Amino acid sequence: MSYDTLFRSVHLATFADATPYGELRDAALLVRDGQIAWLGREAELPADLIDDETLELDCEGRWLTPGLIDCHTHLVFGGDRAAEWEQRLEGVSYEAIARAGGGIRSTVRATRQSSEDELVDAALPRLDCLLAEGVTTLEVKSGYGLDFEHERKMLRAARRLAEERELTVHTTFLGAHALPEEFTGRADDYIDACIDWMGRLAHEQLVDAVDAFCEHIAFSPAQVERLFEAAAALKLPVKLHAEQLSDQGGAGLVARRHGLSADHLEWLSEQDIAAMAQSGTTAVLLPIAYYCLRDTRPPPIEALRRAGVPLAVATDCNPGTAPASSLLLALNMACTLFRLTPAEALAGVTRHAAGALGLKDRGRLAVGLRADLALWSIERPAQLCYWLGGAPMAGRWCGGEAV
Amino acid sequence: MSYDTLFRSVHLATFADATPYGELRDAALLVRDGQIAWLGREAELPADLIDDETLELDCEGRWLTPGLIDCHTHLVFGGDRAAEWEQRLEGVSYEAIARAGGGIRSTVRATRQSSEDELVDAALPRLDCLLAEGVTTLEVKSGYGLDFEHERKMLRAARRLAEERELTVHTTFLGAHALPEEFTGRADDYIDACIDWMGRLAHEQLVDAVDAFCEHIAFSPAQVERLFEAAAALKLPVKLHAEQLSDQGGAGLVARRHGLSADHLEWLSEQDIAAMAQSGTTAVLLPIAYYCLRDTRPPPIEALRRAGVPLAVATDCNPGTAPASSLLLALNMACTLFRLTPAEALAGVTRHAAGALGLKDRGRLAVGLRADLALWSIERPAQLCYWLGGAPMAGRWCGGEAV
Ligand SMILES: [Zn+2]
Ligand SMILES: [Zn+2]
Repeated sequence: MSYDTLFRSVHLATFADATPYGELRDAALLVRDGQIAWLGREAELPADLIDDETLELDCEGRWLTPGLIDCHTHLVFGGDRAAEWEQRLEGVSYEAIARAGGGIRSTVRATRQSSEDELVDAALPRLDCLLAEGVTTLEVKSGYGLDFEHERKMLRAARRLAEERELTVHTTFLGAHALPEEFTGRADDYIDACIDWMGRLAHEQLVDAVDAFCEHIAFSPAQVERLFEAAAALKLPVKLHAEQLSDQGGAGLVARRHGLSADHLEWLSEQDIAAMAQSGTTAVLLPIAYYCLRDTRPPPIEALRRAGVPLAVATDCNPGTAPASSLLLALNMACTLFRLTPAEALAGVTRHAAGALGLKDRGRLAVGLRADLALWSIERPAQLCYWLGGAPMAGRWCGGEAV
Repeated sequence: MSYDTLFRSVHLATFADATPYGELRDAALLVRDGQIAWLGREAELPADLIDDETLELDCEGRWLTPGLIDCHTHLVFGGDRAAEWEQRLEGVSYEAIARAGGGIRSTVRATRQSSEDELVDAALPRLDCLLAEGVTTLEVKSGYGLDFEHERKMLRAARRLAEERELTVHTTFLGAHALPEEFTGRADDYIDACIDWMGRLAHEQLVDAVDAFCEHIAFSPAQVERLFEAAAALKLPVKLHAEQLSDQGGAGLVARRHGLSADHLEWLSEQDIAAMAQSGTTAVLLPIAYYCLRDTRPPPIEALRRAGVPLAVATDCNPGTAPASSLLLALNMACTLFRLTPAEALAGVTRHAAGALGLKDRGRLAVGLRADLALWSIERPAQLCYWLGGAPMAGRWCGGEAV
């Protein structure tokens, strides 16, 4: 029997039991065939598990965690919005910027004008920031194309990222992100179009999940229901941008459909918390967007905690409301602004981020799971949330391969 | 005549005139003998300025700025405070943490226990983060030793950073940071001791400036006055941690002494704004500490702006209230939380940060100044403030040398 890699003299944050971090100190972890084959106290490592061909890695007391999972991003987009961000700070009104073609419409325009290659090239530096922070699985949404051709191009560009770099990319169709100009006044027709595109894109294996923006400035619960009904017929899991600016009952809607996650949730109601708890729907917290928008109403963390709703944390990387490619920054902001404990925040980018993507094979350290791993030069896991700037990553493994 | 380096096809943000950024597009900049020898529109570059030995650098439309200056840091310290930060998030009270020896006292203990080498080794990863963001000049304060031997060790460690890496380190003696346990109830005696140490440390060339923490939990204006009086006798410039938690009139005090800067300033009064404007004292804004403390009272930016007080921005890198080694993050937070424009924020880490350190030879791009430069792969300067995560730095020069 030949094993791939033995991590020795390592502390594990497994996120696999009910304790904070699922901490296991002075441990070893064995990877075989891309999976975790054994883990436990190093002193209890069975001698017959290793042989001459085992690659032994002395981790010198570093910490090993599951590879991090950024479960909510809009990483693929054309252009950026630095110029209008600057105008806002110089006192120009939102209205004036919108009249001049700014806001999400400018990103749609720039995304439509970009080739698939250009979208990939623009996304790679952002992706590299995340990889340097231990990310091994990344969700990427469409939603700046807003027609078949350009939504398809975005999803293809997202898939391409997993060819250019070592990681898993999970794609989400977010056609119902905003109403494109050519459908002004015809939101229901646009939902019909999205349903049509969704089927064709799913047929091309470009869609792992379906998302929408349920908000008074975007799509109504009834329109989202119709989209989700069609997703169910295609057996595609659903998730939702819900309760970011107002309470639309979106989280309850996604929970009743046993959706994977409801995301943002600043205006989430008690009633919908109960619905999420019942369905096991993950609450994806996006503190960077909260920070950038200078929001003052955090999601109801204590109530979510009490109800036992799984809490995930993600970057929301996007050019408008979260121009950010740092998941460690999202961890700090989840603690600082939302008062998550570091253990909760880290479970939110591992165990519960996997849940938000419906991935059962990762996000924890446990026998039989994918060996997606990150090794950290830290003395305690909380340091990953505490320090701002840089990343103490000492190594990253995808499916057991050092990358 | 032989010149060192010619930057071609470059856009300059000079911060040398009254326009935002001091923008000069399609420019060239010539470095000779470590200084800027010429800059202007590339089309107007005099032919006789270059010869065969000039190293020409095609910058392909990138942006060149002065090397960034982080003018307020506590970068050298022992230990960290991640464990107590985590305890706070888990609901343990400040009082309980203080009773258990936490807070600044734990950093003083860890700093005293560290050797000079250990302090340098611990600081280097933090420093490397800053250098990767284009920093070429760094201020480092003492203030966790709180006795002669350990304050000296901190200042020596700070100076050592400039031997280990390419940058200028500016040291500030901050003995009056907190009252050490051995002086409990004897703050005036402690100021006497600081005055004694200051003279001896200055004699060893370890002190470029003198700072204190003027606050009800630290030292009184009268005590600070006495320290500053002694600093004046040594011809050492002064600056002050002022008005962070309450209005102590500290900024007025430092202004009346024609001090370099007053830092923090959340509780700054109208009267002291006028005093700062009159003396040309720089206001150093520390938005990361504001963020970490979840402060809700920003410094009076609009009044400072109206009065014409120079605004600098710094990290405040320290293990308690700003565990951060990213000056670009400080830029974003200065814009997002304090509503500086990107042009103001960037002037705050170049031109006005140099002012906060009393350095007249840098912080702008102008003929005769030190060639401390940073080259950026960006399309507009505002992008340096806009994006969170990673750093688009394409090169860094200290005194004309590529580093
Ligand atoms: Zn989003
Ligand atoms: Zn400070």
